Amino acid sequence: MDFSSKLLENAVNEMAQFPGIGKRTALRLVLHLLKQPKSHTQKLSESLQQMRDEVIFCKNCHNISDKEICEICSNLNRNKELVCVVEDIRDVMAIENTSQYRGQYHVLGGKISPMDGIGPGELNISSLVDKVKSGTVKELVFALSSTMEGDTTNFFIFKQIEEFNITTTTIARGISVGDELEYADEVTLGRSIVNRIPFEASLKK
Amino acid sequence: MDFSSKLLENAVNEMAQFPGIGKRTALRLVLHLLKQPKSHTQKLSESLQQMRDEVIFCKNCHNISDKEICEICSNLNRNKELVCVVEDIRDVMAIENTSQYRGQYHVLGGKISPMDGIGPGELNISSLVDKVKSGTVKELVFALSSTMEGDTTNFFIFKQIEEFNITTTTIARGISVGDELEYADEVTLGRSIVNRIPFEASLKK
Repeated sequence: MDFSSKLLENAVNEMAQFPGIGKRTALRLVLHLLKQPKSHTQKLSESLQQMRDEVIFCKNCHNISDKEICEICSNLNRNKELVCVVEDIRDVMAIENTSQYRGQYHVLGGKISPMDGIGPGELNISSLVDKVKSGTVKELVFALSSTMEGDTTNFFIFKQIEEFNITTTTIARGISVGDELEYADEVTLGRSIVNRIPFEASLKK
Repeated sequence: MDFSSKLLENAVNEMAQFPGIGKRTALRLVLHLLKQPKSHTQKLSESLQQMRDEVIFCKNCHNISDKEICEICSNLNRNKELVCVVEDIRDVMAIENTSQYRGQYHVLGGKISPMDGIGPGELNISSLVDKVKSGTVKELVFALSSTMEGDTTNFFIFKQIEEFNITTTTIARGISVGDELEYADEVTLGRSIVNRIPFEASLKK
């Protein structure tokens, strides 16, 4: 693309560094800014920079927070003995939305993925092992995505905490509520048959 | 969405103001920034703000530029008597990419669209009429999108410059090069039959 302005080109190139945003989309977004008052762009860039500079990760669960210990970890009504292992903050938000979970979280910050150069050292795994070692955790719920990377990460963590004899569970995989059986993929349907639960348990919602 | 951090929420809300970017996408983009070094976010916000604050619109054609008169308008090899009327800078870039046009442009900055509150006063129409009035323009090429708004805008401009007796043309509509006739919509196919051109003319590329 040939730009008529160097300033425009710079802005487009910076925007196009976001994942999933190509040059054309970036140009559309930048031109949108030009149609808005200058204060709009100022507010946008200030809030991005402030967020990047000042955001804190909770010392206990590594979730994004405004305080050293996040609201979930400092909430006394939540079960400290139950810890759900998730990939990132979006998973925490998704689980919180269900209002079905009253334990704490541990945000890994990603999955082990040698292809992307992410090894166990890049993730918050050692602090999780320390937490288990200290004896506060009774059950660990694995809630990573069921991809090869997710399974590898689960297994890696499992191997490290195996000796401490705590309960480890994983969230149930199965047919989504409301879905038709005939359209489900066979792996999911297969797992939901193998891991069937007592009928009475399904009546609790 | 419930955010665990006010800073994160602000950043997501600002990003979600871009057209076509919802809260979920905004969150994904903002989390991407958190995985990058701080300097990345700084560069991004600086380039956006600099672009917004310092970008200039060419005094002659209203295209985005770094100078008072853009490179196209100041290029002596380009035909000043031929002016192509377009909606925004992306159309200029698209036409420039073809290398088939050696005239100048006039960027309206949008189309007349009462539904969106855009009247003729919001667009760079009066400066176009002045340009025609001054006698420098011999041919005006309308290259707006062929929607109701585009047609309205064309007609509005046409009515205002009718008295000056210059040539007005519009870019050809027809079947795209390489497209199959059977898949073309009937309006396009109809226009391409009505506006057929001499066969010899089609041999020039």
